[in-house]
Amino acid sequence: MSKKWIYLFKEGDTSMKNLLGGKGANLAEMTKLDLPVPQGFTITTEACTQYYKDGRKLSDDMYAQILDYIVKLEEITGKKFGDPDNPLLVSVRSGGRVSMPGMMDTILNLGLNDAVVEKLAEKFGNPRWAWDSYRRFIQMYSDVVMMVDKKIFETLIDDIKTKKGVKEDVELSAEDLKELTQQFKATYKSKIGSDFPSDPKEQLVDAIKAVFRSWDNPRAVVYRRDNDIPYSWGTAVNVQMMVFGNMGETSGTGVAFTRDPATGEKHLMGEFLLNAQGEDVVAGIRTPQPIEQLKEMMPEVYADFIRICQTLENHYKNMQDMEFTIEDNHLYMLQTRSGQRTAFAALKIACDFVDEGLISKEQAITMINPRNLNTLLHPAFDAKVLEKTKPIATALAASPGAASGQIVFTAEDAKKWGELGKAVILVRLETSPEDIEGMKAAKGFLTVRGGMTSHAAVVARGMGKCCVSGCSDIIMDEDNKVFRLAGKEFHEGDVISLDGTTGKIYEGQIPTKEAEIVDEFERIMEWADEFRVLRVRTNADTPKDVQKGRELGAEGLGLCRTEHMFFEQSRIDAFREMICSDTLEEREEALAKLLPLQQRDFEEIFEALEGNPATIRFLDPPLHEFVPTSEEDIKKLAKTKGKSVNDIKDIINSLHEFNPMMGHRGCRLAVTYPEIAKMQTSAVIRAAITVKKAHSDWKIKPEIMIPLVSEIKELKVVKDIVVKTADDEIAAAGIDLKYEVGTMIELPRACLTANEIAKEADFFCFGTNDLTQMTFGFSRDDAAKFLGAYYEDNILESDPFVKVDQKGVGQLIEMAVKLGRKNNSSLHVGVCGEHGGEPSSIAFFHKLGLDYVSCSPYRVPIARLAAAQAAILNK
Amino acid sequence: MSKKWIYLFKEGDTSMKNLLGGKGANLAEMTKLDLPVPQGFTITTEACTQYYKDGRKLSDDMYAQILDYIVKLEEITGKKFGDPDNPLLVSVRSGGRVSMPGMMDTILNLGLNDAVVEKLAEKFGNPRWAWDSYRRFIQMYSDVVMMVDKKIFETLIDDIKTKKGVKEDVELSAEDLKELTQQFKATYKSKIGSDFPSDPKEQLVDAIKAVFRSWDNPRAVVYRRDNDIPYSWGTAVNVQMMVFGNMGETSGTGVAFTRDPATGEKHLMGEFLLNAQGEDVVAGIRTPQPIEQLKEMMPEVYADFIRICQTLENHYKNMQDMEFTIEDNHLYMLQTRSGQRTAFAALKIACDFVDEGLISKEQAITMINPRNLNTLLHPAFDAKVLEKTKPIATALAASPGAASGQIVFTAEDAKKWGELGKAVILVRLETSPEDIEGMKAAKGFLTVRGGMTSHAAVVARGMGKCCVSGCSDIIMDEDNKVFRLAGKEFHEGDVISLDGTTGKIYEGQIPTKEAEIVDEFERIMEWADEFRVLRVRTNADTPKDVQKGRELGAEGLGLCRTEHMFFEQSRIDAFREMICSDTLEEREEALAKLLPLQQRDFEEIFEALEGNPATIRFLDPPLHEFVPTSEEDIKKLAKTKGKSVNDIKDIINSLHEFNPMMGHRGCRLAVTYPEIAKMQTSAVIRAAITVKKAHSDWKIKPEIMIPLVSEIKELKVVKDIVVKTADDEIAAAGIDLKYEVGTMIELPRACLTANEIAKEADFFCFGTNDLTQMTFGFSRDDAAKFLGAYYEDNILESDPFVKVDQKGVGQLIEMAVKLGRKNNSSLHVGVCGEHGGEPSSIAFFHKLGLDYVSCSPYRVPIARLAAAQAAILNK
Repeated sequence: MSKKWIYLFKEGDTSMKNLLGGKGANLAEMTKLDLPVPQGFTITTEACTQYYKDGRKLSDDMYAQILDYIVKLEEITGKKFGDPDNPLLVSVRSGGRVSMPGMMDTILNLGLNDAVVEKLAEKFGNPRWAWDSYRRFIQMYSDVVMMVDKKIFETLIDDIKTKKGVKEDVELSAEDLKELTQQFKATYKSKIGSDFPSDPKEQLVDAIKAVFRSWDNPRAVVYRRDNDIPYSWGTAVNVQMMVFGNMGETSGTGVAFTRDPATGEKHLMGEFLLNAQGEDVVAGIRTPQPIEQLKEMMPEVYADFIRICQTLENHYKNMQDMEFTIEDNHLYMLQTRSGQRTAFAALKIACDFVDEGLISKEQAITMINPRNLNTLLHPAFDAKVLEKTKPIATALAASPGAASGQIVFTAEDAKKWGELGKAVILVRLETSPEDIEGMKAAKGFLTVRGGMTSHAAVVARGMGKCCVSGCSDIIMDEDNKVFRLAGKEFHEGDVISLDGTTGKIYEGQIPTKEAEIVDEFERIMEWADEFRVLRVRTNADTPKDVQKGRELGAEGLGLCRTEHMFFEQSRIDAFREMICSDTLEEREEALAKLLPLQQRDFEEIFEALEGNPATIRFLDPPLHEFVPTSEEDIKKLAKTKGKSVNDIKDIINSLHEFNPMMGHRGCRLAVTYPEIAKMQTSAVIRAAITVKKAHSDWKIKPEIMIPLVSEIKELKVVKDIVVKTADDEIAAAGIDLKYEVGTMIELPRACLTANEIAKEADFFCFGTNDLTQMTFGFSRDDAAKFLGAYYEDNILESDPFVKVDQKGVGQLIEMAVKLGRKNNSSLHVGVCGEHGGEPSSIAFFHKLGLDYVSCSPYRVPIARLAAAQAAILNK
Repeated sequence: MSKKWIYLFKEGDTSMKNLLGGKGANLAEMTKLDLPVPQGFTITTEACTQYYKDGRKLSDDMYAQILDYIVKLEEITGKKFGDPDNPLLVSVRSGGRVSMPGMMDTILNLGLNDAVVEKLAEKFGNPRWAWDSYRRFIQMYSDVVMMVDKKIFETLIDDIKTKKGVKEDVELSAEDLKELTQQFKATYKSKIGSDFPSDPKEQLVDAIKAVFRSWDNPRAVVYRRDNDIPYSWGTAVNVQMMVFGNMGETSGTGVAFTRDPATGEKHLMGEFLLNAQGEDVVAGIRTPQPIEQLKEMMPEVYADFIRICQTLENHYKNMQDMEFTIEDNHLYMLQTRSGQRTAFAALKIACDFVDEGLISKEQAITMINPRNLNTLLHPAFDAKVLEKTKPIATALAASPGAASGQIVFTAEDAKKWGELGKAVILVRLETSPEDIEGMKAAKGFLTVRGGMTSHAAVVARGMGKCCVSGCSDIIMDEDNKVFRLAGKEFHEGDVISLDGTTGKIYEGQIPTKEAEIVDEFERIMEWADEFRVLRVRTNADTPKDVQKGRELGAEGLGLCRTEHMFFEQSRIDAFREMICSDTLEEREEALAKLLPLQQRDFEEIFEALEGNPATIRFLDPPLHEFVPTSEEDIKKLAKTKGKSVNDIKDIINSLHEFNPMMGHRGCRLAVTYPEIAKMQTSAVIRAAITVKKAHSDWKIKPEIMIPLVSEIKELKVVKDIVVKTADDEIAAAGIDLKYEVGTMIELPRACLTANEIAKEADFFCFGTNDLTQMTFGFSRDDAAKFLGAYYEDNILESDPFVKVDQKGVGQLIEMAVKLGRKNNSSLHVGVCGEHGGEPSSIAFFHKLGLDYVSCSPYRVPIARLAAAQAAILNK
């Protein structure tokens, strides 16, 4: 038996969204609710998927069902395709599982032909309407189905308006429109080589195929990627009997929201146009009237509409965005869906719905898109100014927020200018740990290379600053402090604006609105905390970041990257001396200088945590990242070490690696230089002792994390160093202090042998960035070069450094969690890679039963909300 | 109940080698055979492992068992520890599972003290022997157990000889030796702070601990690594009643082989010393006599010995290496083991044993160490000259063979000098594909960086040339064509010699013996082919290499790295034009130049294969590897492309990657530039058509291999390009040609999702080099920096790029094979990484049920033999 590819509106309901698409499912639901919906049928999303599987062909089977359902629709409506006396006219609209506004195509008035139009004009005594509908149909059909450039038709309209001496389309007479229709048909024939099809069935079948095809158009592809919509979902097609808002002054069309989508206030908000079809509202040629005015013009229709709005909101328990048409004083509902809203409105609506007793707290939590919280937590550009400003380029939206400032090209300049009170944007090929001071001084960062997990992106998110990364359109000339972009030169001191939430770059200054946290935010967060199972920690390298993370609800420190503490001037010198040492003694001497500094850092961090847990990762990056680059610094180091400049350069060269990401880093440093691990252990333990002495009521139990472990014996060697050093420090202090030693799981081999590693580890923390790199063999700094092509070819649907790859990387994580817990029942397990703050990844980690996620401070609220949603949805 | 840590010789046998060590198991076996073995007991290897687990301590349990076994041994021998009238004296010797000659320590004459020695001298009327034995014991004990520098004792011996005016130890009288003994004891006390222990039990326990400890001494660690002996095996300790070869002219000691270990000829070969202990033979102070002379001196003993030799060879069915002692005309066997032999002798002995009906062909195959075949297939230095020559450095033995030649520093010079008929050694920081022409001209390569799978190593093995890589002791100054090593400067034109089999580097010329393949080699290989299940292919990039591989028994081409074909002058130009193209058309134009050249390459390869299977891998390395580096070449390219030199440099810079190994390479190139895959497909298919037309009887079925796949959709996109192009070519030619499209499995994600990938792949071929890199996160080019420390700390026991890591990488391979075959029953599966030619890895691949391994031509015989051994041992 063949598959059912088509459903009448009355055969479906809202639960069938995946099959019928959002629009189709809601049309069916409204039919079920006995609301006035022009009837029709929906061709399923599965049919679309099949169409692509079959090499963009409608199967015979599907074709036969379409013909069947035309007959059924004719029966329901009492009208007939192509019957001049009582013609069935339909609209053909796309409708995916989630709304993709304006991304796909629509055809109205399908079913018209020369015979039908004449009779229709006559029957309704409205030839202008009839011909206007026909010419619109030809225009849409030519554009959407036959891909004739729509400008040709617009030129013809302009020509006839000039000829007739009129300015607006509505001023054209029935005769004018009839003439235009003839011109359109002639144009069609000259472009396509055959007559405009007069058979409504032929029109319909081709229109359906065109809608399927539009699923794959370039704007849809980009929209899907930006909104995490899988290619595999496909779109449904809705074929619906036409009703006409353009039949005169008793007709009209409009859109409305049940609540204010900008503020969330509880009042109807909408607009309408008399004597118009839907596309006129969208096109914005005529200015629509506020919905309230309908009350006086058509009080009964208005009352009907108000009743329906209430019904829909109560029924869906969500703010609705609706389209309606009035045909000769009859109200028809063409669409309802959950309305898009600002983050602010989303919170208010959710809270109000709870207060109104419409929904539960759980439902309120699941109503809010966690990603939208970003706009509440970061500054944003003035929306009105933004509307009128064209970006000069778009790159990766690496860290949310908005900033304007003067361009600087070096971290030193950023610092200098910042001290003079100037707002600066740091523009670099890429940033490096050395730039950290300058990055603190800048308002935002723009980089030419690097992806969503590049240094600039990670640091920006940690600092809550905006960052646009991987803008490869920039032609950079750092030496001369100038770059070219969009055909213009930008020099030091020129002003640009970055929107890190969208990845857009603007020329000049744009006014900025600061972030403000509202009461509703706090309420929703409290509710989220009630329901979530995953704990949420923050990634932070400084006491200030820890503080920020805790303010935003973090329950501890999940990742402290200790190397970031080595870049301040006083420290980097000692660190470089350590690197350039020939003997253990020399290295120990240099490390002894770092010990008290690092200890002080940890003390401040423990203070800021007030007894909450702290995971401290030991030195991770390759030593090459720390070496001096300027001649001046090299000379200075040579002098300190009593070596020649060439000796120092030799050392620097010897640290060069072909693939540093897989080189001498992570715990490999601790294996080759145990003295580094010793110093870091002493610093952690001494700090913990000091803070414990000062705050006996706090629970101080440092978690020392060994990075990049691939083998249990490797962990054991480093752990032995840590334990020996720590126990000696604790014994010397004569205090009772507990600590844990765990490992970062970030290599495939660590996952594969997690059963062994768990025997030596108190905890696992997944470093999903590195794990993603190794599992795919993608260097996150280089992948930008080919990921574009991967999206275009539908090989990847999202950046695996943003959303965790559940199939591959996720499989390794799942394996490691199971193997690890089997051999160590007290093992606690978390994630501290960038994915720890991404909602779909958090949902996945919840399902795997991890104990916590950790993310940069500004992502903590997102993680809290996403974790609560995951818990609620998986109950 | 406590574990049994100790076995009497009569409690064991040869099958208990893992527990008792080789020496202990064979002493037990000889006891079982009723051969004259001084009795004793063996402390197990498990006890050694436990000793290390317990933090280098003997457990109470073990200690108690030692005391027990002393009593048992006293009962067996009728002698008693410390009894002056009838003292039990013992030797204490290490003995691992496999022989580690001279690596660990031995103590003789244990049980002597002041009381015992006096009585012993009296009883046997031989005070000289008694005192000599005592002073030897003190000397060995002090050195081995107490780590007193042995030079101190030697100085004392020299002093007394000077005082007495004698030259040889044997000229010292009993009184002299007694005096010496007092001096030794005084020295001991001054160094250790206590008297030399007189309690034999205390002596014994400390000696046992010292032998355990010696398992971990630096020379043992190095030896184990060189010989693939796991640290975890541990050593057994053999405690055996002393017999004395130094009791006068009716006593002696010696060693013998049952056949000639150099040639394999069937005759006894050995030597002995009268009135001596074992260490005198080893020390080489006196020249031993050939074993045949024993016949006249002690005919009965000799006859006994001949009979025992025959018994042992027949019993063990292998050539034996034996130690014996004659005490007052009584023969005692102290050791027997399989004798070390040259590769040549190994083949001859194995064939002779089969011909003599002693063993089966299967047994003959398992007798030969596949790694030793290298010395038969490659030139080697004259062993006698080598003995007397000290290497200036040792680095990685990257490709076997030996070569002397004049140093050159660039590939161009290698080519130039080579054309002048000079033998040259190319010395480079590292080699790159650009150097290929020069590498062909050189006799061998020496590199400063890079490991066992570096470019130089891989190319060398492919060419059958010798290579020593990763010699980081070299201080290189390429610009001035000079390097420093071992305190000397080496200039262009200076002669050095490289031994790629040992990794040793020598100054000056060393005479070289060419490889010669003997009949026995062919016989063994034929036998191997009878038994092996794994098929063996060769990795080869040129028709010449294919030819060489087939000569050595390869059954097809397992990996053709097509990029290696692009480095010849005419090709590299076109390839660079392609890289620097702005448009598809430009790229296609450049590729069109390459197509006929690559087609011709494939034709020659198909010709050389004569219908055997051929796997051709499409372009794999990042494009950056192909760009010009010299200003001249850049100018040339700029001119051809009509661009400025700066434009070209910009392009080159834009191709730079942070981690090229995980960058824009492999199938990612085919996704972004499908035209490259199209060109390569056309070249393969056209070549196959041409050769098929010429040889209708050959089975031509090219296997096109897509590298670096991580996701099925990625493979599908590239496969679609290949299939479309191939089918068009085949249709145009009007011929019936089959081909396969498969993938290289070299990323963890490919293994994890192999069930999906198998649906689109005709075959999997594991690229174990890259898979090892990603699984461990080890860059093979950079890992040398820390692998040394990893061996020292026993984190790794062998280089995972040499022997496949079965636990991690192997787990992924196993997973992929299972998942792949489940979804595609006709999938064929092979390995073409460097591990395909390494015996222990081959055994593992056999167990996983792979279809074939592929390796460089000169490793093919090793793979054939190893595959046969795996099949036989797993029957």
